[in-house]
Amino acid sequence: MMTILQKDRFRDHPTLGFVDWVLRGIGQVVFQNNPISGAVILAAIFYNSWIYGIACLFGTIISTLTAMWLKADRGLIKDGLFGFNGALIAVALVAYTSPNFATGNIPNAHLWLYIAISAAFTSVLVPTFSALLGPHKVPGLTMPFVASGWLFLAALLQFTTIDVSSAIKPTSPADFTGPRPDYTWSTWFYGITHGIAEIFFQDNWMSGVLILVGIAINTRIGALMALMGSTVAVAMAVFYGAHDAAIQDGLFGYNAALTALALGGLFLVLNVPGMLYALLGVIITARVWASIGIFLDPTGMPVLTSAFVLITWFMLLAQRGFKVLVPVPPAQATTPEENLRRYRATQKK
Amino acid sequence: MMTILQKDRFRDHPTLGFVDWVLRGIGQVVFQNNPISGAVILAAIFYNSWIYGIACLFGTIISTLTAMWLKADRGLIKDGLFGFNGALIAVALVAYTSPNFATGNIPNAHLWLYIAISAAFTSVLVPTFSALLGPHKVPGLTMPFVASGWLFLAALLQFTTIDVSSAIKPTSPADFTGPRPDYTWSTWFYGITHGIAEIFFQDNWMSGVLILVGIAINTRIGALMALMGSTVAVAMAVFYGAHDAAIQDGLFGYNAALTALALGGLFLVLNVPGMLYALLGVIITARVWASIGIFLDPTGMPVLTSAFVLITWFMLLAQRGFKVLVPVPPAQATTPEENLRRYRATQKK
Amino acid sequence: MMTILQKDRFRDHPTLGFVDWVLRGIGQVVFQNNPISGAVILAAIFYNSWIYGIACLFGTIISTLTAMWLKADRGLIKDGLFGFNGALIAVALVAYTSPNFATGNIPNAHLWLYIAISAAFTSVLVPTFSALLGPHKVPGLTMPFVASGWLFLAALLQFTTIDVSSAIKPTSPADFTGPRPDYTWSTWFYGITHGIAEIFFQDNWMSGVLILVGIAINTRIGALMALMGSTVAVAMAVFYGAHDAAIQDGLFGYNAALTALALGGLFLVLNVPGMLYALLGVIITARVWASIGIFLDPTGMPVLTSAFVLITWFMLLAQRGFKVLVPVPPAQATTPEENLRRYRATQKK
Repeated sequence: MMTILQKDRFRDHPTLGFVDWVLRGIGQVVFQNNPISGAVILAAIFYNSWIYGIACLFGTIISTLTAMWLKADRGLIKDGLFGFNGALIAVALVAYTSPNFATGNIPNAHLWLYIAISAAFTSVLVPTFSALLGPHKVPGLTMPFVASGWLFLAALLQFTTIDVSSAIKPTSPADFTGPRPDYTWSTWFYGITHGIAEIFFQDNWMSGVLILVGIAINTRIGALMALMGSTVAVAMAVFYGAHDAAIQDGLFGYNAALTALALGGLFLVLNVPGMLYALLGVIITARVWASIGIFLDPTGMPVLTSAFVLITWFMLLAQRGFKVLVPVPPAQATTPEENLRRYRATQKK
Repeated sequence: MMTILQKDRFRDHPTLGFVDWVLRGIGQVVFQNNPISGAVILAAIFYNSWIYGIACLFGTIISTLTAMWLKADRGLIKDGLFGFNGALIAVALVAYTSPNFATGNIPNAHLWLYIAISAAFTSVLVPTFSALLGPHKVPGLTMPFVASGWLFLAALLQFTTIDVSSAIKPTSPADFTGPRPDYTWSTWFYGITHGIAEIFFQDNWMSGVLILVGIAINTRIGALMALMGSTVAVAMAVFYGAHDAAIQDGLFGYNAALTALALGGLFLVLNVPGMLYALLGVIITARVWASIGIFLDPTGMPVLTSAFVLITWFMLLAQRGFKVLVPVPPAQATTPEENLRRYRATQKK
Repeated sequence: MMTILQKDRFRDHPTLGFVDWVLRGIGQVVFQNNPISGAVILAAIFYNSWIYGIACLFGTIISTLTAMWLKADRGLIKDGLFGFNGALIAVALVAYTSPNFATGNIPNAHLWLYIAISAAFTSVLVPTFSALLGPHKVPGLTMPFVASGWLFLAALLQFTTIDVSSAIKPTSPADFTGPRPDYTWSTWFYGITHGIAEIFFQDNWMSGVLILVGIAINTRIGALMALMGSTVAVAMAVFYGAHDAAIQDGLFGYNAALTALALGGLFLVLNVPGMLYALLGVIITARVWASIGIFLDPTGMPVLTSAFVLITWFMLLAQRGFKVLVPVPPAQATTPEENLRRYRATQKK
């Protein structure tokens, strides 16, 4: 297949390699070690806002360069595993300091430097979480982004050169009470598509569709899982009567979509119990997004992808305790399709 | 002895086994791997409220079934080690969604499903914490309940189909200031008995006494330890001038009673330094209950058994650093009496 | 050299040994395993306030005695590694319960007992964090103090016999907004010297200078690092426009100075990448101090040395992932000078 051949052509190229690693870095946010997936996803961001597109590139480049300077493992750098947290932190810092969240405002010089330090810090945190979770065969996921995001977003509230007054502000649990809302078709349509787009902080349903396309280029099952995750999260939120605006903004879906990608065939083989386990993970993640929001409420901090990281960590740490599950070690986890093929091959012997 | 013979009669029975495992699950909340202890404790809950009794059974059954479906270790399931967190989460979710906390209100269909998912999640978390703490020979304790409890109680604030407005609400640290209260005999009597009953969220002194009886059936020392823990916690609270209402509600005692059960002979042999170490743990747990209450205050979340889990984890993780302590690995920890007998046997050789 | 000969003269002395261990305990707050450094630092505290001086001694003695009673490793006790957390918790508990923070008020009997239990608890926590982090060759740092500090300071809000109304109180994020302040030479002078003094909660620039002298007696590089840490933190705070009062109080500097001491030559050999890595750590720590302040804001709790502990842990856990860094195992980390000498010796072979 064309795409598979193209996939590794530039990875070891002396001069173009770096471009390949950065694109893979963007793809790795949704677990796709594929530069074309990364390019399509980058296009999805630029489609919504060139400011976010530039920020995403900037963050990925800085965090990849940091890992190169510190002489981190070359293979991990080439697979984009030092880039994806930088991609997210850069977009997040622009989003939460912009009066206009939807498309972002152009950062000032102080903020560019601030983003650079935050992105460099995510690269330091990659081996940190590998050291802690590696022995358990559990990947660090986007925890470097979440940790760096919380630590650096909160700090902004104490500095005057970067204005965050409009974006980060404490709300009250009282905001969340009220009668059961009326849901319409747009609850479902925007809820599901924004649920994908919101992984990259994009308030744009078309970006969500393009990101799904980017995933599908590398793995059809993966794209289906992301769609399933976002859909089940919206169903859960509707069933329990969550706020319509929160659903339509994709807030219930983005963590659930990531959990679906991780548990649905990637780090656990997609047999029937694996599928049901992933479904349980998705349902729990959708709830836990709501819960972490309440816990962070007094601080004014956003949830980021913490619900996904926490539940996926918990459920992967448990994997060896349940005989129906078939774990895939992070270093061998490529796509659900390939994991399944390899597992079936070992079963035949 | 009758009780000892009865203890294992049904554990491996083909059809009645499940009943035995569920009763052991209820007993394991207070570390008693004994179906009769579990039955007496269940009676103690029904004595206060049939709604809580049903909820307790429901949670234990769901979490046990989840572990069976995922093919967890059979021995652990039979010992009730997948049931006890489910027992607690079910009672907690009923308690914190009921306008009438004392006896609970009957859950609606949404809530029953919510409880089922929460109880299933506690079973997922049992091997999670075993993976993290097992290498240190430290048990997971009720952390699966605490984690599931916080994550699922907080989420309720964002949903409209389950009303929590009356039970979970943020209070202010200002509520805690005031002059030194006058304590009476009822501070002590209700403080100590409710301290035991509150382990299962029961506001009933007689339930507390019955739970002590349930423990004493399996281990006299254990029952004494639970009583000591609750008593010392009340003494600490009186000495430092805590709110009379908080003491009488048993809030200082229930975490301390659990710490006393865990450190007082169960996971550490009950020699003199072990006894003093347990006493230090009880004193610290009583304080830390107050402290975690302040930390959770802005979120409106209850402390649950987190003070017990945190301090017992800390003090057991330290066990190999202190030569006066004699650790008992979790897999061999049965009762203080048996641990002591085995330890003395090895000393004689 | 005189100082080096004196250094170990009393460590194994039958009767004077205890004095030596306590002084080393005070020195170990800033990583100096040297009784003369400890004595100079104690003098720096007494210079500001005899109440804090007494509290510091009391806490160090109690935590050292607790470790002796529990038969902890003799070598660790003699090196002051069970004393330094006790030194800090005692001063902190006096500071945050005193209407007069600058020099402290004399504790009542309830508070002395409270301090004793808190200091004993820090000794329990030393092997706890060793068990968790030892396999990663990462030291526990002042985490026992931070954990004990948070757990016991917060609890005070629920007790009436110790008054904390004036010192611990929740503030609002709104306090942190405002126009960019005008900085003067005193921003820099007090910011840097108080940044050192504030490690021991001392609001006195001369104490800061004396503490630097105490460090320099044992290691010139260490003293330079502490100075660099505090200076870079002030520069960062000025660059991003933090509150002038917060800078002058040394609040940005004290965590950064400790990070500089830990990463700048002590647990990582001070080659050029090690130096830059320490500098990155200092910049991040200064930010994270601001950030943790926002997270703790709703609870009213102080940051203590948590920013230093968190960032140093993160950056040391990552050490084996980066080939440019040369880790020094905690048991061999003495001074930057000696680490460098030993490293160069191995390079020559």
